[in-house]
Amino acid sequence: MSERPGGRTARVRAAVLRAAEDALIEKGFAGLDLADVARRAVVGKTTVYRRWKTVPALVADLLVDMAAQSRPRADTGSLEADLRENARLVQRTLTDPRQGPLFRAFLAAALTDPETAAALHGFYATRIAEWAPCVSAAVRRGELPADTSASEVVRAVSAPLYYRLLVGDPLEPHHADTAVTAAIAAARAGTYVSAGRP
Amino acid sequence: MSERPGGRTARVRAAVLRAAEDALIEKGFAGLDLADVARRAVVGKTTVYRRWKTVPALVADLLVDMAAQSRPRADTGSLEADLRENARLVQRTLTDPRQGPLFRAFLAAALTDPETAAALHGFYATRIAEWAPCVSAAVRRGELPADTSASEVVRAVSAPLYYRLLVGDPLEPHHADTAVTAAIAAARAGTYVSAGRP
Repeated sequence: MSERPGGRTARVRAAVLRAAEDALIEKGFAGLDLADVARRAVVGKTTVYRRWKTVPALVADLLVDMAAQSRPRADTGSLEADLRENARLVQRTLTDPRQGPLFRAFLAAALTDPETAAALHGFYATRIAEWAPCVSAAVRRGELPADTSASEVVRAVSAPLYYRLLVGDPLEPHHADTAVTAAIAAARAGTYVSAGRP
Repeated sequence: MSERPGGRTARVRAAVLRAAEDALIEKGFAGLDLADVARRAVVGKTTVYRRWKTVPALVADLLVDMAAQSRPRADTGSLEADLRENARLVQRTLTDPRQGPLFRAFLAAALTDPETAAALHGFYATRIAEWAPCVSAAVRRGELPADTSASEVVRAVSAPLYYRLLVGDPLEPHHADTAVTAAIAAARAGTYVSAGRP
Protein backbone atom coordinates (compact mmCIF):
# COMPACT_ATOMS: atom_id res chain seq x y z
CA MET A 1 0.00 0.00 0.00
CA SER A 2 1.30 3.48 -0.90
CA GLU A 3 0.65 5.07 2.46
CA ARG A 4 2.94 7.23 4.53
CA PRO A 5 4.52 5.58 7.59
CA GLY A 6 2.49 6.30 10.70
CA GLY A 7 -0.67 6.43 8.61
CA ARG A 8 -3.83 4.36 9.01
CA THR A 9 -2.17 1.07 8.07
CA ALA A 10 0.49 1.53 10.74
CA ARG A 11 -2.10 2.57 13.33
CA VAL A 12 -4.22 -0.49 12.61
CA ARG A 13 -1.18 -2.74 12.90
CA ALA A 14 -0.16 -1.17 16.23
CA ALA A 15 -3.68 -1.59 17.64
CA VAL A 16 -3.98 -5.19 16.46
CA LEU A 17 -0.56 -6.21 17.77
CA ARG A 18 -1.28 -4.61 21.15
CA ALA A 19 -4.60 -6.46 21.29
CA ALA A 20 -2.86 -9.69 20.32
CA GLU A 21 -0.43 -9.18 23.24
CA ASP A 22 -3.32 -8.65 25.64
CA ALA A 23 -5.10 -11.77 24.39
CA LEU A 24 -1.92 -13.89 24.54
CA ILE A 25 -1.28 -12.81 28.14
CA GLU A 26 -4.88 -13.49 29.17
CA LYS A 27 -5.65 -16.66 27.25
CA GLY A 28 -2.39 -18.05 25.88
CA PHE A 29 -1.70 -19.13 22.34
CA ALA A 30 -4.34 -21.88 22.32
CA GLY A 31 -7.01 -19.34 23.28
CA LEU A 32 -5.99 -16.77 20.67
CA ASP A 33 -8.68 -15.96 18.11
CA LEU A 34 -8.54 -13.39 15.27
CA ALA A 35 -12.14 -12.26 15.78
CA ASP A 36 -11.46 -11.63 19.48
CA VAL A 37 -8.28 -9.70 18.62
CA ALA A 38 -10.24 -7.56 16.11
CA ARG A 39 -12.87 -6.80 18.78
CA ARG A 40 -10.21 -5.82 21.33
CA ALA A 41 -8.43 -3.63 18.76
CA VAL A 42 -11.72 -2.05 17.60
CA VAL A 43 -10.75 -2.95 14.04
CA GLY A 44 -12.95 -4.65 11.45
CA LYS A 45 -12.78 -8.45 11.55
CA THR A 46 -12.36 -8.56 7.76
CA THR A 47 -9.29 -6.31 7.96
CA VAL A 48 -7.65 -8.61 10.51
CA TYR A 49 -8.48 -11.81 8.60
CA ARG A 50 -7.33 -10.32 5.27
CA ARG A 51 -4.07 -8.94 6.61
CA TRP A 52 -2.91 -11.66 9.06
CA LYS A 53 -4.94 -14.70 7.91
CA THR A 54 -3.97 -17.07 10.78
CA VAL A 55 -3.12 -16.93 14.48
CA PRO A 56 0.48 -18.16 13.98
CA ALA A 57 0.98 -15.49 11.27
CA LEU A 58 -0.27 -12.79 13.64
CA VAL A 59 2.04 -14.02 16.42
CA ALA A 60 4.93 -14.08 13.92
CA ASP A 61 4.20 -10.45 12.98
CA LEU A 62 4.12 -9.52 16.66
CA LEU A 63 7.60 -11.04 17.08
CA VAL A 64 8.90 -9.16 14.01
CA ASP A 65 7.58 -5.93 15.54
CA MET A 66 9.12 -6.71 18.95
CA ALA A 67 12.49 -7.46 17.38
CA ALA A 68 12.36 -4.18 15.42
CA GLN A 69 11.45 -2.18 18.52
CA SER A 70 13.75 -3.85 21.02
CA ARG A 71 16.63 -2.08 22.63
CA PRO A 72 19.94 -1.55 20.77
CA ARG A 73 23.03 -3.19 22.22
CA ALA A 74 25.24 -1.57 24.82
CA ASP A 75 28.64 -0.16 23.85
CA THR A 76 30.49 0.64 27.07
CA GLY A 77 33.94 -0.48 25.91
CA SER A 78 33.91 -3.24 28.58
CA LEU A 79 32.79 -6.78 27.63
CA GLU A 80 31.58 -7.50 31.14
CA ALA A 81 29.56 -4.27 31.37
CA ASP A 82 28.07 -4.79 27.90
CA LEU A 83 27.05 -8.37 28.60
CA ARG A 84 25.70 -7.44 32.00
CA GLU A 85 23.39 -4.91 30.34
CA ASN A 86 22.21 -7.64 28.00
CA ALA A 87 21.71 -10.16 30.82
CA ARG A 88 19.87 -7.64 33.01
CA LEU A 89 17.64 -6.76 30.05
CA VAL A 90 16.76 -10.45 29.58
CA GLN A 91 16.19 -10.86 33.33
CA ARG A 92 13.94 -7.78 33.49
CA THR A 93 12.01 -8.82 30.41
CA LEU A 94 11.34 -12.36 31.63
CA THR A 95 10.17 -11.12 35.05
CA ASP A 96 8.26 -8.05 33.83
CA PRO A 97 4.54 -8.11 34.75
CA ARG A 98 3.55 -7.74 31.07
CA GLN A 99 6.56 -8.97 29.06
CA GLY A 100 7.08 -12.00 31.31
CA PRO A 101 3.69 -13.63 30.68
CA LEU A 102 3.96 -12.62 27.01
CA PHE A 103 7.31 -14.40 26.61
CA ARG A 104 5.97 -17.43 28.50
CA ALA A 105 3.13 -17.57 25.97
CA PHE A 106 5.56 -17.26 23.02
CA LEU A 107 7.86 -19.95 24.40
CA ALA A 108 4.99 -22.32 25.23
CA ALA A 109 3.57 -21.87 21.72
CA ALA A 110 6.98 -22.30 20.06
CA LEU A 111 7.53 -25.59 21.90
CA THR A 112 4.56 -27.12 20.13
CA ASP A 113 3.80 -25.00 17.02
CA PRO A 114 6.47 -25.05 14.25
CA GLU A 115 5.38 -21.74 12.65
CA THR A 116 5.70 -19.93 15.99
CA ALA A 117 9.01 -21.73 16.63
CA ALA A 118 10.37 -20.33 13.33
CA ALA A 119 9.14 -16.82 14.20
CA LEU A 120 10.69 -16.99 17.69
CA HIS A 121 13.92 -18.32 16.20
CA GLY A 122 13.93 -15.24 13.93
CA PHE A 123 13.36 -12.95 16.92
CA TYR A 124 16.34 -14.42 18.79
CA ALA A 125 18.52 -14.38 15.67
CA THR A 126 17.87 -10.62 15.42
CA ARG A 127 18.62 -10.05 19.10
CA ILE A 128 21.78 -12.17 19.04
CA ALA A 129 23.05 -10.38 15.90
CA GLU A 130 22.40 -7.06 17.66
CA TRP A 131 24.53 -7.98 20.71
CA ALA A 132 27.26 -10.10 19.07
CA PRO A 133 29.41 -7.04 18.15
CA CYS A 134 30.06 -6.48 21.90
CA VAL A 135 31.85 -9.83 21.91
CA SER A 136 33.60 -9.31 18.54
CA ALA A 137 35.00 -6.03 19.86
CA ALA A 138 36.37 -7.84 22.95
CA VAL A 139 37.99 -10.43 20.68
CA ARG A 140 39.63 -7.60 18.69
CA ARG A 141 40.83 -6.03 21.95
CA GLY A 142 42.44 -9.38 22.79
CA GLU A 143 40.20 -10.04 25.83
CA LEU A 144 38.94 -13.32 24.39
CA PRO A 145 40.67 -15.95 22.22
CA ALA A 146 40.76 -15.30 18.47
CA ASP A 147 37.95 -17.08 16.56
CA THR A 148 35.63 -17.02 19.57
CA SER A 149 32.06 -17.32 18.25
CA ALA A 150 30.46 -14.04 19.31
CA SER A 151 26.93 -15.38 18.91
CA GLU A 152 27.71 -18.43 21.07
CA VAL A 153 28.89 -16.16 23.89
CA VAL A 154 25.67 -14.12 23.64
CA ARG A 155 23.65 -17.35 23.72
CA ALA A 156 25.64 -18.52 26.75
CA VAL A 157 24.58 -15.40 28.65
CA SER A 158 20.88 -15.95 27.95
CA ALA A 159 20.78 -19.72 28.44
CA PRO A 160 20.88 -19.90 32.27
CA LEU A 161 18.23 -17.18 32.53
CA TYR A 162 15.79 -18.96 30.21
CA TYR A 163 16.59 -22.24 31.96
CA ARG A 164 15.67 -20.74 35.33
CA LEU A 165 12.39 -19.47 33.88
CA LEU A 166 11.70 -22.88 32.39
CA VAL A 167 12.33 -24.99 35.50
CA GLY A 168 10.71 -22.52 37.89
CA ASP A 169 13.84 -21.29 39.68
CA PRO A 170 13.93 -17.70 40.97
CA LEU A 171 15.29 -15.20 38.42
CA GLU A 172 16.90 -12.18 40.06
CA PRO A 173 19.44 -9.58 38.92
CA HIS A 174 22.30 -11.46 40.57
CA HIS A 175 21.49 -14.48 38.41
CA ALA A 176 21.99 -12.25 35.37
CA ASP A 177 25.41 -11.22 36.69
CA THR A 178 26.39 -14.85 37.38
CA ALA A 179 25.37 -15.76 33.82
CA VAL A 180 27.79 -13.11 32.52
CA THR A 181 30.64 -14.25 34.79
CA ALA A 182 30.12 -17.85 33.68
CA ALA A 183 29.95 -16.99 29.96
CA ILE A 184 33.11 -14.88 30.11
CA ALA A 185 35.03 -17.54 32.08
CA ALA A 186 34.00 -20.22 29.56
CA ALA A 187 34.85 -17.93 26.62
CA ARG A 188 38.27 -17.06 28.07
CA ALA A 189 39.01 -20.78 28.45
CA GLY A 190 38.38 -21.18 24.71
CA THR A 191 35.05 -23.01 24.93
CA TYR A 192 33.45 -21.01 22.12
CA VAL A 193 36.38 -20.98 19.72
CA SER A 194 34.95 -22.16 16.43
CA ALA A 195 36.54 -23.29 13.20
CA GLY A 196 35.16 -20.57 10.96
CA ARG A 197 31.64 -20.62 12.40
CA PRO A 198 30.30 -17.12 13.16
CA MET B 1 -4.55 -49.43 49.64
CA SER B 2 -3.00 -52.56 51.15
CA GLU B 3 -1.96 -54.17 47.94
CA ARG B 4 1.33 -55.75 47.02
CA PRO B 5 3.62 -53.72 44.72
CA GLY B 6 3.10 -54.76 41.12
CA GLY B 7 -0.52 -55.63 41.88
CA ARG B 8 -3.62 -54.30 40.18
CA THR B 9 -3.21 -50.73 41.52
CA ALA B 10 0.33 -50.53 40.12
CA ARG B 11 -0.78 -52.01 36.80
CA VAL B 12 -3.61 -49.48 36.49
CA ARG B 13 -1.24 -46.62 37.28
CA ALA B 14 1.29 -47.81 34.70
CA ALA B 15 -1.41 -48.10 32.01
CA VAL B 16 -2.89 -44.69 32.82
CA LEU B 17 0.49 -42.93 32.89
CA ARG B 18 1.49 -44.51 29.59
CA ALA B 19 -1.85 -43.41 28.07
CA ALA B 20 -1.34 -39.90 29.49
CA GLU B 21 2.08 -39.77 27.77
CA ASP B 22 0.52 -40.82 24.46
CA ALA B 23 -2.22 -38.21 24.78
CA LEU B 24 0.25 -35.45 25.77
CA ILE B 25 2.44 -36.22 22.76
CA GLU B 26 -0.53 -36.26 20.39
CA LYS B 27 -2.64 -33.42 21.73
CA GLY B 28 -0.53 -31.42 24.17
CA PHE B 29 -1.51 -30.36 27.67
CA ALA B 30 -4.46 -28.23 26.53
CA GLY B 31 -5.95 -31.24 24.72
CA LEU B 32 -5.51 -33.65 27.63
CA ASP B 33 -8.74 -35.11 28.99
CA LEU B 34 -9.18 -37.68 31.78
CA ALA B 35 -11.97 -39.55 29.95
CA ASP B 36 -9.78 -39.87 26.84
CA VAL B 37 -6.86 -41.12 28.96
CA ALA B 38 -9.14 -43.72 30.60
CA ARG B 39 -10.29 -44.92 27.16
CA ARG B 40 -6.71 -45.21 25.89
CA ALA B 41 -5.63 -47.07 29.04
CA VAL B 42 -8.72 -49.35 28.92
CA VAL B 43 -9.43 -48.42 32.53
CA GLY B 44 -12.76 -47.32 33.98
CA LYS B 45 -13.37 -43.57 33.78
CA THR B 46 -14.48 -43.52 37.42
CA THR B 47 -11.18 -45.07 38.53
CA VAL B 48 -9.21 -42.37 36.72
CA TYR B 49 -11.37 -39.49 38.01
CA ARG B 50 -11.32 -40.86 41.57
CA ARG B 51 -7.59 -41.45 41.67
CA TRP B 52 -6.17 -38.45 39.74
CA LYS B 53 -9.08 -35.97 39.87
CA THR B 54 -7.59 -33.33 37.51
CA VAL B 55 -5.35 -33.12 34.43
CA PRO B 56 -2.57 -31.19 36.23
CA ALA B 57 -2.62 -33.80 39.04
CA LEU B 58 -2.26 -36.61 36.48
CA VAL B 59 0.64 -34.81 34.78
CA ALA B 60 2.26 -34.24 38.19
CA ASP B 61 2.00 -37.98 38.94
CA LEU B 62 3.55 -38.74 35.57
CA LEU B 63 6.52 -36.50 36.45
CA VAL B 64 6.89 -38.19 39.87
CA ASP B 65 6.98 -41.56 38.09
CA MET B 66 9.51 -40.33 35.52
CA ALA B 67 11.78 -38.95 38.24
CA ALA B 68 11.59 -42.27 40.12
CA GLN B 69 12.41 -44.28 37.01
CA SER B 70 15.09 -42.04 35.55
CA ARG B 71 18.68 -43.09 35.23
CA PRO B 72 21.03 -42.99 38.25
CA ARG B 73 24.01 -40.66 38.04
CA ALA B 74 27.34 -41.67 36.57
CA ASP B 75 30.32 -42.37 38.83
CA THR B 76 33.40 -42.63 36.62
CA GLY B 77 35.81 -40.83 38.96
CA SER B 78 36.21 -38.03 36.38
CA LEU B 79 34.11 -34.87 36.66
CA GLU B 80 34.21 -34.26 32.94
CA ALA B 81 33.18 -37.82 32.07
CA ASP B 82 30.38 -37.80 34.68
CA LEU B 83 28.98 -34.48 33.48
CA ARG B 84 29.28 -35.54 29.86
CA GLU B 85 27.10 -38.57 30.62
CA ASN B 86 24.55 -36.24 32.20
CA ALA B 87 24.66 -33.78 29.29
CA ARG B 88 24.40 -36.54 26.68
CA LEU B 89 21.43 -37.99 28.59
CA VAL B 90 19.68 -34.61 28.53
CA GLN B 91 20.53 -34.14 24.82
CA ARG B 92 19.24 -37.63 23.94
CA THR B 93 16.08 -37.16 25.99
CA LEU B 94 15.20 -33.79 24.44
CA THR B 95 15.75 -35.10 20.90
CA ASP B 96 14.22 -38.57 21.42
CA PRO B 97 11.22 -39.25 19.13
CA ARG B 98 9.00 -40.00 22.14
CA GLN B 99 10.65 -38.24 25.11
CA GLY B 100 11.35 -35.07 23.10
CA PRO B 101 7.70 -34.23 22.30
CA LEU B 102 6.76 -35.33 25.83
CA PHE B 103 9.21 -32.88 27.41
CA ARG B 104 8.11 -30.13 25.03
CA ALA B 105 4.56 -30.71 26.25
CA PHE B 106 5.66 -30.62 29.92
CA LEU B 107 7.68 -27.45 29.42
CA ALA B 108 4.92 -25.71 27.44
CA ALA B 109 2.39 -26.60 30.14
CA ALA B 110 4.71 -25.53 32.97
CA LEU B 111 5.21 -22.10 31.34
CA THR B 112 1.54 -21.33 31.76
CA ASP B 113 0.13 -23.69 34.42
CA PRO B 114 1.43 -23.18 38.00
CA GLU B 115 0.54 -26.72 39.20
CA THR B 116 2.49 -28.28 36.33
CA ALA B 117 5.32 -25.78 36.95
CA ALA B 118 5.57 -27.01 40.56
CA ALA B 119 5.56 -30.65 39.44
CA LEU B 120 8.25 -30.02 36.83
CA HIS B 121 10.30 -28.10 39.40
CA GLY B 122 10.09 -31.20 41.62
CA PHE B 123 11.21 -33.42 38.75
CA TYR B 124 14.30 -31.27 38.12
CA ALA B 125 15.06 -30.99 41.84
CA THR B 126 15.19 -34.81 41.98
CA ARG B 127 17.40 -35.04 38.90
CA ILE B 128 19.76 -32.30 40.10
CA ALA B 129 20.07 -33.92 43.55
CA GLU B 130 20.87 -37.23 41.83
CA TRP B 131 23.76 -35.75 39.81
CA ALA B 132 25.12 -33.17 42.27
CA PRO B 133 27.35 -35.74 44.08
CA CYS B 134 29.49 -35.98 40.89
CA VAL B 135 30.40 -32.34 41.44
CA SER B 136 30.77 -32.61 45.23
CA ALA B 137 33.24 -35.47 44.70
CA ALA B 138 35.27 -33.28 42.32
CA VAL B 139 35.32 -30.50 44.92
CA ARG B 140 36.61 -33.01 47.51
CA ARG B 141 39.29 -34.14 45.04
CA GLY B 142 40.37 -30.48 44.74
CA GLU B 143 39.36 -30.19 41.06
CA LEU B 144 36.98 -27.31 41.75
CA PRO B 145 37.12 -24.48 44.30
CA ALA B 146 35.88 -25.25 47.83
CA ASP B 147 32.25 -24.19 48.42
CA THR B 148 31.35 -24.63 44.75
CA SER B 149 27.58 -25.13 44.57
CA ALA B 150 27.25 -28.63 43.12
CA SER B 151 23.66 -28.08 42.07
CA GLU B 152 24.51 -24.84 40.24
CA VAL B 153 27.15 -26.70 38.21
CA VAL B 154 24.62 -29.39 37.27
CA ARG B 155 22.13 -26.65 36.28
CA ALA B 156 24.84 -24.94 34.22
CA VAL B 157 25.29 -28.15 32.19
CA SER B 158 21.57 -28.42 31.38
CA ALA B 159 20.88 -24.74 30.72
CA PRO B 160 22.41 -24.38 27.22
CA LEU B 161 20.71 -27.59 26.08
CA TYR B 162 17.24 -26.47 27.19
CA TYR B 163 17.94 -23.01 25.75
CA ARG B 164 18.73 -24.52 22.34
CA LEU B 165 15.49 -26.52 22.47
CA LEU B 166 13.57 -23.40 23.44
CA VAL B 167 14.90 -21.09 20.73
CA GLY B 168 14.89 -23.73 17.99
CA ASP B 169 18.66 -24.18 17.61
CA PRO B 170 20.00 -27.62 16.63
CA LEU B 171 20.78 -29.89 19.60
CA GLU B 172 23.50 -32.43 18.84
CA PRO B 173 25.87 -34.48 20.98
CA HIS B 174 28.70 -31.96 20.49
CA HIS B 175 26.48 -29.27 22.04
CA ALA B 176 26.24 -31.49 25.12
CA ASP B 177 30.04 -31.70 25.28
CA THR B 178 30.40 -27.92 24.86
CA ALA B 179 27.92 -27.40 27.71
CA VAL B 180 30.15 -29.54 29.95
CA THR B 181 33.35 -27.72 28.92
CA ALA B 182 31.68 -24.36 29.60
CA ALA B 183 30.27 -25.40 32.99
CA ILE B 184 33.61 -26.78 34.16
CA ALA B 185 35.54 -23.67 32.98
CA ALA B 186 33.08 -21.40 34.79
CA ALA B 187 33.17 -23.59 37.92
CA ARG B 188 37.01 -23.64 37.95
CA ALA B 189 37.01 -19.84 37.72
CA GLY B 190 34.92 -19.75 40.91
CA THR B 191 31.62 -18.64 39.33
CA TYR B 192 29.55 -21.07 41.40
CA VAL B 193 31.24 -20.58 44.76
CA SER B 194 28.43 -19.86 47.18
CA ALA B 195 28.36 -18.52 50.69
CA GLY B 196 26.81 -21.56 52.35
CA ARG B 197 24.19 -22.17 49.67
CA PRO B 198 23.98 -25.84 48.64
